[in-house]
Amino acid sequence: MSRPLRLIGLSGSLRRASVNTGLLRAAAELLPAGAALEIADIGELPLFNEDLRLAGPLPAVQALKDRLAGADGVVFAVTEHNYTLSAALKNAIDWASRPPVESPLKGKPALLMGAGGALGTGRAQYHLRQVLVSLDMAVLNKPELLVPYAHQKFDAEGNLTDATVREQLRAQLEAFVAWARRVG
Amino acid sequence: MSRPLRLIGLSGSLRRASVNTGLLRAAAELLPAGAALEIADIGELPLFNEDLRLAGPLPAVQALKDRLAGADGVVFAVTEHNYTLSAALKNAIDWASRPPVESPLKGKPALLMGAGGALGTGRAQYHLRQVLVSLDMAVLNKPELLVPYAHQKFDAEGNLTDATVREQLRAQLEAFVAWARRVG
Amino acid sequence: MSRPLRLIGLSGSLRRASVNTGLLRAAAELLPAGAALEIADIGELPLFNEDLRLAGPLPAVQALKDRLAGADGVVFAVTEHNYTLSAALKNAIDWASRPPVESPLKGKPALLMGAGGALGTGRAQYHLRQVLVSLDMAVLNKPELLVPYAHQKFDAEGNLTDATVREQLRAQLEAFVAWARRVG
Amino acid sequence: MSRPLRLIGLSGSLRRASVNTGLLRAAAELLPAGAALEIADIGELPLFNEDLRLAGPLPAVQALKDRLAGADGVVFAVTEHNYTLSAALKNAIDWASRPPVESPLKGKPALLMGAGGALGTGRAQYHLRQVLVSLDMAVLNKPELLVPYAHQKFDAEGNLTDATVREQLRAQLEAFVAWARRVG
Repeated sequence: MSRPLRLIGLSGSLRRASVNTGLLRAAAELLPAGAALEIADIGELPLFNEDLRLAGPLPAVQALKDRLAGADGVVFAVTEHNYTLSAALKNAIDWASRPPVESPLKGKPALLMGAGGALGTGRAQYHLRQVLVSLDMAVLNKPELLVPYAHQKFDAEGNLTDATVREQLRAQLEAFVAWARRVG
Repeated sequence: MSRPLRLIGLSGSLRRASVNTGLLRAAAELLPAGAALEIADIGELPLFNEDLRLAGPLPAVQALKDRLAGADGVVFAVTEHNYTLSAALKNAIDWASRPPVESPLKGKPALLMGAGGALGTGRAQYHLRQVLVSLDMAVLNKPELLVPYAHQKFDAEGNLTDATVREQLRAQLEAFVAWARRVG
Repeated sequence: MSRPLRLIGLSGSLRRASVNTGLLRAAAELLPAGAALEIADIGELPLFNEDLRLAGPLPAVQALKDRLAGADGVVFAVTEHNYTLSAALKNAIDWASRPPVESPLKGKPALLMGAGGALGTGRAQYHLRQVLVSLDMAVLNKPELLVPYAHQKFDAEGNLTDATVREQLRAQLEAFVAWARRVG
Repeated sequence: MSRPLRLIGLSGSLRRASVNTGLLRAAAELLPAGAALEIADIGELPLFNEDLRLAGPLPAVQALKDRLAGADGVVFAVTEHNYTLSAALKNAIDWASRPPVESPLKGKPALLMGAGGALGTGRAQYHLRQVLVSLDMAVLNKPELLVPYAHQKFDAEGNLTDATVREQLRAQLEAFVAWARRVG
């Protein structure tokens, strides 16, 4: 039997009742047996600044890098702001991927999902896919999960309540776990 | 005679010796008569968080929005990190464009330039162009300014030293001032 | 009174019952007074080949370039195939924009609309926006028109039957005519 | 010993002396032992038209699909026209991926390379990466091969003459063969 798959989830939104953080909570529930997902907090990181990076290791950055280094795959819950990634998610990615230690993201399996807007964060997800070329991650192609009109599918606390999206998410997670075991 | 054109420059990099901030300094120098550019500091903004925004106006955000509201155009010096915009620039854009007051960017003329990497920040600039559709800005198409291999064209303090790039920048600024007077 | 605005429509789909060609027919109907739209046929062009172009002018290419040269603006009805532009539309753009005569598209106002798929051709439209930077066209930012689930909104002949989309289209055309008069 | 890897190359340019077709010829030469590349001709395909597709199988389309079905991977030599894919390459992709038979591209390893322009076809390559999500191909992330200023690196017949680019190509092909054996 293969060992459990440890996944880290990064949410693009810092708001408490974020639907994208809610999507990650639902993912943690719906994962197939043999896989577990934990959500990493990225809200405490300072804005990326190369001078700050060179001044020495920041504990919050080091903690994020350590968690990612120990993971078997990364799940990005993509928030779309102004037709691309949120600053919060981009910031976490930039801190995580920079020297001195090698990027803990390199070569890792990656999954994209997102909720919000008329296109379900599609504009942001395709930009993130380009970023993941740079990071050299092994991104699942399909199925994609783009959830438009999120307010109809999540409650006021950001919990996923829509049965159809839950089934789409379950199917996507199954495909991802198979992908991660294959390329990870 | 038309009144002077006031431009605000936003640099994608927070490092002190940034080549993109240096590009903005060179732009301030090379602008045609009748136009002036000031660089806004975006490094003090907190990471965008909708809960924080709703909790009340932040002085640093308000100051940025006021400066942009008083400007006739915006010059983006685009830093490319991991094949897209830097977190710092995206963060400033998200804060500036959100309610309660209407986005001060809406309808304004915009100019893109950038230095760094093998493609001269092209990957980030085309993503920013998509963002500027969302912001409804009037972006100059051409000439573009993508400066690859920046370390050969800027000194250690980030000052532009390359004569060819200076001439390209001068020509771009002239085209932009004409564009801003036409559509602004 | 300003002279009538002559618009040329290019449809990304060559099929007879195309919903995107149908969108252009609806646009021709819904345009405000003082503007008219004709649809150009792009299905007879050969696949773009630089050797063929250099071998001498092709009548079908020349006819398209002449029509575009006489137009005050171009309306692109974007078909999305495999997450980007259709070959047919790209082919027309490439033929139209190449030497020996200067591109008749340069500087002209452009409007994007599209129907089809879960994202309403969004993926293709943002790619086309990048192409239009190259062509130096003055593209309307907003309102955008992305019509998902087209089979519910068009009949079997590709005629637009959905009242909501008709109103969105009418509003977009009004904004575009104002834009074209301003920047054209 | 593993069986030989059969690769099919598709060039984005139809001109006889194309540098991108030349890049494929160089790739055929520089492949590691145990792999071979043949270039498929895509210039005889008609412009994609869904009505034409439904009217029955076209021999040129069937021939292309058969070759792709028999391949272990696909190498795209990307030509950039007007900041995105050429019509010729997009046309081949659309024909190859459509029903009635399942897409022969699905799940196959893919490699991107390209020569031309100031960005070395980067704008087109990132668009193609989005297309390959739709096609569900397993694209190599790195190393990328973007060859700017192609006229200095190819002769008048489109043969690659630049030693540095040859070494980059050789290294890329080695990485791709390993990737194709792993995910194919």
